[in-house]
Formats: sequence, structure tokens, C-alpha cells
Amino acid sequence: MVTVALDVLGGDNAPGSNIDGALLALEKSSEVSVLLFGPEGKIREELKKRQKEETDRLRIVDAPEFITQEDHPVSAIQQKKESSIVKGLMAVKSGEADAFLSAGSSGAVLAGGQLKLGRIKGALRTPLATAIPTAKGVSLLLDCGANVDARPEWICQFARMGDIYAKKLLGIKEPSVKLVNIGTEDEKGNALIKAVKPMLEGLQDINYQGYIESREIPEGAADVIVTDAWTGNAMLKLYEGTASTLVKLIKSAITADFKSKIGALLIKDSLKETLKFFDASQYGGAPLLGLKGLVVKCHGNAKASEISNGILQCLTFVNAGINEELSEKLQADSLLFQKDIAK
Amino acid sequence: MVTVALDVLGGDNAPGSNIDGALLALEKSSEVSVLLFGPEGKIREELKKRQKEETDRLRIVDAPEFITQEDHPVSAIQQKKESSIVKGLMAVKSGEADAFLSAGSSGAVLAGGQLKLGRIKGALRTPLATAIPTAKGVSLLLDCGANVDARPEWICQFARMGDIYAKKLLGIKEPSVKLVNIGTEDEKGNALIKAVKPMLEGLQDINYQGYIESREIPEGAADVIVTDAWTGNAMLKLYEGTASTLVKLIKSAITADFKSKIGALLIKDSLKETLKFFDASQYGGAPLLGLKGLVVKCHGNAKASEISNGILQCLTFVNAGINEELSEKLQADSLLFQKDIAK
Repeated sequence: MVTVALDVLGGDNAPGSNIDGALLALEKSSEVSVLLFGPEGKIREELKKRQKEETDRLRIVDAPEFITQEDHPVSAIQQKKESSIVKGLMAVKSGEADAFLSAGSSGAVLAGGQLKLGRIKGALRTPLATAIPTAKGVSLLLDCGANVDARPEWICQFARMGDIYAKKLLGIKEPSVKLVNIGTEDEKGNALIKAVKPMLEGLQDINYQGYIESREIPEGAADVIVTDAWTGNAMLKLYEGTASTLVKLIKSAITADFKSKIGALLIKDSLKETLKFFDASQYGGAPLLGLKGLVVKCHGNAKASEISNGILQCLTFVNAGINEELSEKLQADSLLFQKDIAK
Repeated sequence: MVTVALDVLGGDNAPGSNIDGALLALEKSSEVSVLLFGPEGKIREELKKRQKEETDRLRIVDAPEFITQEDHPVSAIQQKKESSIVKGLMAVKSGEADAFLSAGSSGAVLAGGQLKLGRIKGALRTPLATAIPTAKGVSLLLDCGANVDARPEWICQFARMGDIYAKKLLGIKEPSVKLVNIGTEDEKGNALIKAVKPMLEGLQDINYQGYIESREIPEGAADVIVTDAWTGNAMLKLYEGTASTLVKLIKSAITADFKSKIGALLIKDSLKETLKFFDASQYGGAPLLGLKGLVVKCHGNAKASEISNGILQCLTFVNAGINEELSEKLQADSLLFQKDIAK
């Protein structure tokens, strides 16, 4: 049995969709149990509305405080000790839960994971690894998180982490790993990239295939795409923003006049699948890799299905022993970095 | 009369579309003349096919060498002295032409501009400023070029340059200027951004409006968007790649079956406009700002209309006295940087 601590308060559709997501996950798998972190009265009320109640596999843990999007992440983690985020993370630290899942403030979840749980042995940083949809299926982009001003050895570790996650959780055999650059020629790149390149080439048992230009990402040109958090975060948000704007424009164009509206009805079914192109909710959320325990961040606008998928993703993550393998491989790799840094 | 040196050999559709673009520009404006740089015989042949010949406003300058996409940019500029790129740039340097336009190797055009022409007084670097389409119209993104590992004062200058260009060439009154960041809160950002922020706040007569997250770019949340070349180039390519992939997927979805095909016919007209969303060819090419003279880079896949628009853009640029204003304002601003750097 894997126990997931769920932040009932986080996200635009909280608490309803989060609770629906928990119920859905419990239906889908008998191997998972959920701890609901949030104001007890509110949660009881929501369960009652759904004619549900607490069970062995669905327990309420009272967490009356709420960390908002406006709160300063680090201060909020330090001060709001009764918040759903802090209490949920502490449940992972104490071993009461195996994983923490939230659709709330990214900053607070990222900062909280690092401050409260700490890193597994060997991990220098804890990248946020986001599954992004592509024309071929899915790619894993990391780091999309908060480790700005990255050091070369961090990025090299992200390749190892991404490789293991892509294999064990996304089920990709020998995932191709590429490094983001602004050209594919050898002399291209900033100082950081030039330092990362020889390290990546020295990593054992990784299908490293060199540089990727960002224009190739939507086509699905690599399974694992590594970059610093600054670039990763900027690209992820642009990817989501471009898709969302374009989809909005298309929807408005094809309902602009009577003729188009008729046409829109006819193409509706085939277009629906395509407009889902940028919907990665089937992959659950984005894990922070390299933490003791597991922290998963869902989209702020997560619906019940994404929360449910996120909970089941925690089950797979824990059962696959990803953290154990991460720690072992990262420690083995570290000899390589020390050699490189000493050069 | 403004004279534009055109690289006849550069681009996927060369030489045909480049020559068509030149002819189109000459038709559209009587104030522009074009020098065609490329192998003389080949150009004569292409003109003959079109029943055209050399005139006072359309002259051929023999440039038998060709810089390919595979050539190392800096070496090619140094070695291929008879290439269309080097000879075209030298015509600007000598004053024979006012501007150089190419759809060829970006690396060679960027390197060549810097090596052959040099910077105007006051300019620390020469950003590539790209007009990108948005839901509201157009934004100017700079630097999309080759100045990786940027210094804070370079980025601050990009804001000034973008402001002047947006006003004088894109016709935007009091353009809003924003700085790319991975969040809009004050504490967000890498070391570079934190150093740029106070400099931008100190710039006089600029409508600086703080941070922009990349997800807001497609909506058109700022007129001028400044960032370092690493981030700008990665974002520009991702923007183009995402749009192109999504448009491809949509086209294939709406022609997938018979019902959809009928629907596609009905929505064709309204959709066509929308699918042009990411087509910035109406704005011509991307100038390298801050060079002595003017260098404009068109897309590799530029058609005649983009080349023609690029030529007319050179006319506007020169007539508006953009370089004179750039130099004056950049020198005035430089006092601010010196103060900041000394702090």
C-alpha cells in the first residue's frame, strides 16, 4: 500500500476536484491510500456532498492554514506550520505518507520540498521534471523548476534522473537524451552548455544524442530534454501559452460566422483530439526528482482526472524504486563530476 | 534614394524568390534601389527568365562564392571574401549601399555584421530584434541573436534599442517594455535579471512595465520584450516550432476523414487567417540593431513578399534616422550604466 498526502486546498478547482481526484484514484487502484490535508470541517462537508466518508484508505488530517499564490514561498513554509502544504510534507518526512501531491503554489511546493524533506544521497539539486506533449507522444523536460543559475554538474545529473524516470515511469526503453542549445553545431552555446557537454558525453549507460534546438521539441525529437531551470521554465510556459493562445484563436475563428459554424460541427470530433495535443494531464503531475520521499506538482488548473493520475503516478514511482536507483546511480556518477571539476 | 544590398544566394527559395522580392520592392517604392549580390551569370539568367534587365535601380554585383549553412560562420566570413554575404556587407561599409539583407546563414550574417561593419558609438552589443506575431498584433523580441552570456548593461541597452525601433518602425506609441522572467514577483529571477532590473528602472523616457512571464508572450502582453540572446533564441525557435507543429496537426486532423474534409472546406476562409497567426513575414526581417549601417536577416524560408517587405523596411529604417537616434540615446544612457557598474 502506498500512501499519498494530498493538498486539498491547492489549485484553481480546489477543494472539489482534488477530492474527486482522490476518490477516483481509490476506485482505480486498491494499492493506494490518500491522506486529505486541509480544514477538517470543509473536507467533511465536501465528502458528505458526495455521500462519502472517511475510511482506512481515505483519512482526513486537519490543516487549517492555507498558503496562497501571493505568499512569499520560503516565508510561508517557515511560518504557516498548520498549512496543508507544510503538514502534508511533514507526513512524508515522518514516514506516515510516501508522497505529497499538490496543485497549489509552485514556489511553496518547490521550496517546501527542499526545506522539509532534503535530498537523497548523491543528489546535488532537485529538478522539476515535466512531461510535455509532442507530436510523437511525450517528452520529459527538466529542470522546469527553481534551480536558476545552474552549475554544469547539476544539469548532468538531470540527464541521469530523466533517464531513470523516463524508463521506469513513462515506460520508454533507452530514452534518447538531448541538451538544449541554440544551435546544433559544436561551437554553439553559452559557457554553461560548453561545460556540460563533456560531462554528458562521459555519462555511462545513457543514450545521449547531443544538442536539441527548441524548435524541434514540439515534433518530439528527444525523450528526455535537459536544460537549466531558467531556460526550462521559460520554455515550458511559452509552450503552454502558445498552445493555449492558438487554440483560443482557432476556436474563435471557426465559430466566427454561420458557414464556419456548420463546418466546425463536422470537424469537431477529429479536431478535438488535436486540440488536446497540449494536454499532459494524463501523465499526472511533475515530480521534484532527488528528494527524500516524493513531491509531485500538478497544474494549478488540474481537474479530478489529473489529480487521480498524479496519485497513481506516486504509486508507480514508489513501487518502481526510482529513488533507490537514483541515489545509487547519482553516487556512482559523482566520481565523474569530481574529476571534471578538478580539471 | 536608399540602396539595399541583397544576398541573392541566401535562403531556401534562392535565387528565384530573392529576385522576385527585389522586383516587387522596386515596383512598390520609387525611393529604393537594389544591388543584387551573387554569381553574375546566374542572376542575368534569372532576370532574363522574368524578361527583366539591369537598370539604374537594379544592379548586379558579381559575388561568385557562397557561404552555406554548414560553413563555420566566422571562418567563412574571413575566408570567402568573394561571397554574396561578405561583398554585400562591404558595400554597406564603403557607403555604396545603406543596408544589407540576407535570408542566408544566420550565423554568418550575425558574425559578418559585427566583423565587417562594427558598432555605432555607444552600442555595447548588436541584438537581433525579431517581430513576433501575437494575438494582439506584434511584439518585438530582442535579443534573439548571438550575444550569449549577456551582461546586464547589454540587456538594458536592448530595451532602449527596442523602444526606438518599435516607435519608429512598427509605429507603436509609447511601447510597453518588459523583461523576461520566470515569475512576476520581485524575488524571482537569476543573477543576471536581478542586476538588470534596477538599471531598467533607471532608464529615462521608457515605458518600462516590469517582468513578463513567457506564457503571456503569445497573448501580446508587451510591445517590446527584452532578454538575453540565449533565452530569446530558445524562445523564438520554440514559438515557431510549436506553431508549425500545431498547424500541421490541425491540417492533418481536419482532412482525416470525409466528414472532416467537408467541414474543412466550410471553415477554410476563417481558419486561413488564424493559421497565419505565426506568419511574421509582413514585418520583413529581423534587424541587427546598433551596427554602423543596417543588416537585416530574413527567415531561411522567406518568400518574395518577405524579401520585398524587408527591402522596404530598410527604406523606413534609414529614412527614420534610427541609427542616429540610437547612437545619441545610447551614449546618454551610458552614464547610467557606468554609475551602476561602479556601485
